Amino acid sequence: MVRFMASKVRLYVDHPLGEGQSVPLSREQAHYLFGVMRLGEGTVVSLINGADGEWDAEVVKASKKGGVLTCSEQTAALQMPPDLWLLFAPIRKERTAFIVEKAVEMGVRRVMPVQTDFTQSANRIRQDKLQAHAVEAAEQCGGTFVPPVNDLARLDRVLADWPDDRQLMFCDEVLIGDPVGLPDIAGPWAILVGPEGGFSPAERDRLRGLPYAHPVSLGPRILRADTAAVAALTVWQQALGDWG
Amino acid sequence: MVRFMASKVRLYVDHPLGEGQSVPLSREQAHYLFGVMRLGEGTVVSLINGADGEWDAEVVKASKKGGVLTCSEQTAALQMPPDLWLLFAPIRKERTAFIVEKAVEMGVRRVMPVQTDFTQSANRIRQDKLQAHAVEAAEQCGGTFVPPVNDLARLDRVLADWPDDRQLMFCDEVLIGDPVGLPDIAGPWAILVGPEGGFSPAERDRLRGLPYAHPVSLGPRILRADTAAVAALTVWQQALGDWG
Repeated sequence: MVRFMASKVRLYVDHPLGEGQSVPLSREQAHYLFGVMRLGEGTVVSLINGADGEWDAEVVKASKKGGVLTCSEQTAALQMPPDLWLLFAPIRKERTAFIVEKAVEMGVRRVMPVQTDFTQSANRIRQDKLQAHAVEAAEQCGGTFVPPVNDLARLDRVLADWPDDRQLMFCDEVLIGDPVGLPDIAGPWAILVGPEGGFSPAERDRLRGLPYAHPVSLGPRILRADTAAVAALTVWQQALGDWG
Repeated sequence: MVRFMASKVRLYVDHPLGEGQSVPLSREQAHYLFGVMRLGEGTVVSLINGADGEWDAEVVKASKKGGVLTCSEQTAALQMPPDLWLLFAPIRKERTAFIVEKAVEMGVRRVMPVQTDFTQSANRIRQDKLQAHAVEAAEQCGGTFVPPVNDLARLDRVLADWPDDRQLMFCDEVLIGDPVGLPDIAGPWAILVGPEGGFSPAERDRLRGLPYAHPVSLGPRILRADTAAVAALTVWQQALGDWG
C-alpha cells in the first residue's frame, strides 16, 4: 500500500499493448509526458490499457503534437478484480470522485452511480469526468484494470434489470449497531451504498423483498457515503473477495 | 450510515453539559448559529462536548457578539469508541484532513500524526486545524466523542515511549496479497498506516522486532494512505472492535 509514487511514469492508453507494438500518443498525452513530465526520446514509461496488463514502452518519437512509444516487455499481467459492482448514490462532487477512486483501489469490475429517492438532484455527475478519475486511480495505484463507470441510472430501473445470479449487499443505516451480517454466498456480487439521508421507506421495502438483496450493518456509528463505500468494500473483499 | 443531514443543528462546545446548564457562546459560534444558520431565540439545537453525551439546548439569548443556550434534556449518552489509536504519516493536506475525519467516523480514541523516514517534509500539519476537522466530523456524523489529535511526533520517539500493553497493527505494503493476518488479542490497540513510499527498511526492521507490533496485509492492491486508513479501521473494528 501507499507506494504509488512509482519512479516510472504510468500512463493509460486506449490502444492494444504487446511486444514491439507501436503506440501513438494524443496531443494531450504528449503534453503530459514531454511538457509536464519533461521526458525525452529513449525514456521508458509504463503503459496500461485495462486489458493487456502493464508494459514497459520506450519513447521513440516526441513532439508537441504527439509522439510514438514502442512496447518492449510486459511487466505485469492483467489482474482482474473479483466480479463485484459498486452502486452508489452521487453526493457532493469531490466526494463522488473519491468514491470512484476508492472503488478502483479496492477492486471492482464496474462502478454504477444510481439515483435514489433521496439523492439530491444537485448531485449531477459527469460520466466522462468520473471515468477519467477511474483511469487516474489505476495509473497512480499500480492497477492494470480500469472499471467502466456507468451513466447515472435510477435505482428502480437498475433493480428491474437485475441479473438473477448476482447478490446485492446493501448498507442499511437502520441496522446501525447490528453484526455485519454478510452471508457467505459465492459468485457475482454488488454493493449498494445509499445517499445522504439513507434509503426511502419504499426503497427499503423493495430492497428487503428482493431474494438476492442482503442488508448489512457497518458498525454502530453513522458513516458518510464515501467512508461507507470503503468500509463495505473492505468487508466484502475480506469475506468473499481476493484478500488472501 | 449517511444520514448526517440531521434536521437539528449539532454544535460542539467546550463547556460542561447537564440539565438546566447555561452554555455561553463564543462570537464565532454565535455567528454560525445566528448569522449562517439564521436561528433565533427559542430554537432548540443539539450540543456535544465530547464528554457528556448529546443534549438538547434552547437558544435563550442571541446576539452578534455571543449568546446563551440552556440545556434541557440528554438525547444520547456518551458513546466511547474502543481503545484504539490511529497513527498515520501526514500526506497532502486535503487527504490528511480526510484521514482525521474518517478516524472520527470509524471510531478511535486518539489520532496521532507521525513523521516517518519517508514522510515528505512538505507535509506539515496544523494540529489546530486537524482538531477542528475532528470536531466537525463528530458534529456532522452524530458522534458524541471527539478524539484528541496529537501534534506531529517522530515515529521512533513514539515507539520509544510505547505502552507495554498496547498492540500495534501496522499495514505493511510488503505483504500485499497475503491474508490479512490480524491476531486475536484483546485490550488496547493502535493502527499504523505508513506514508507514500512505505516504511524505510530500518523502520520495518524495527517494527518487526517489536513484540507488540503485528504486520497485516490489506489485500492484493496498492492503496493510498487515506483508503488504507479506512480499510484498516474496518478490519480492526470488525474483528476486535465494536461492530456487533
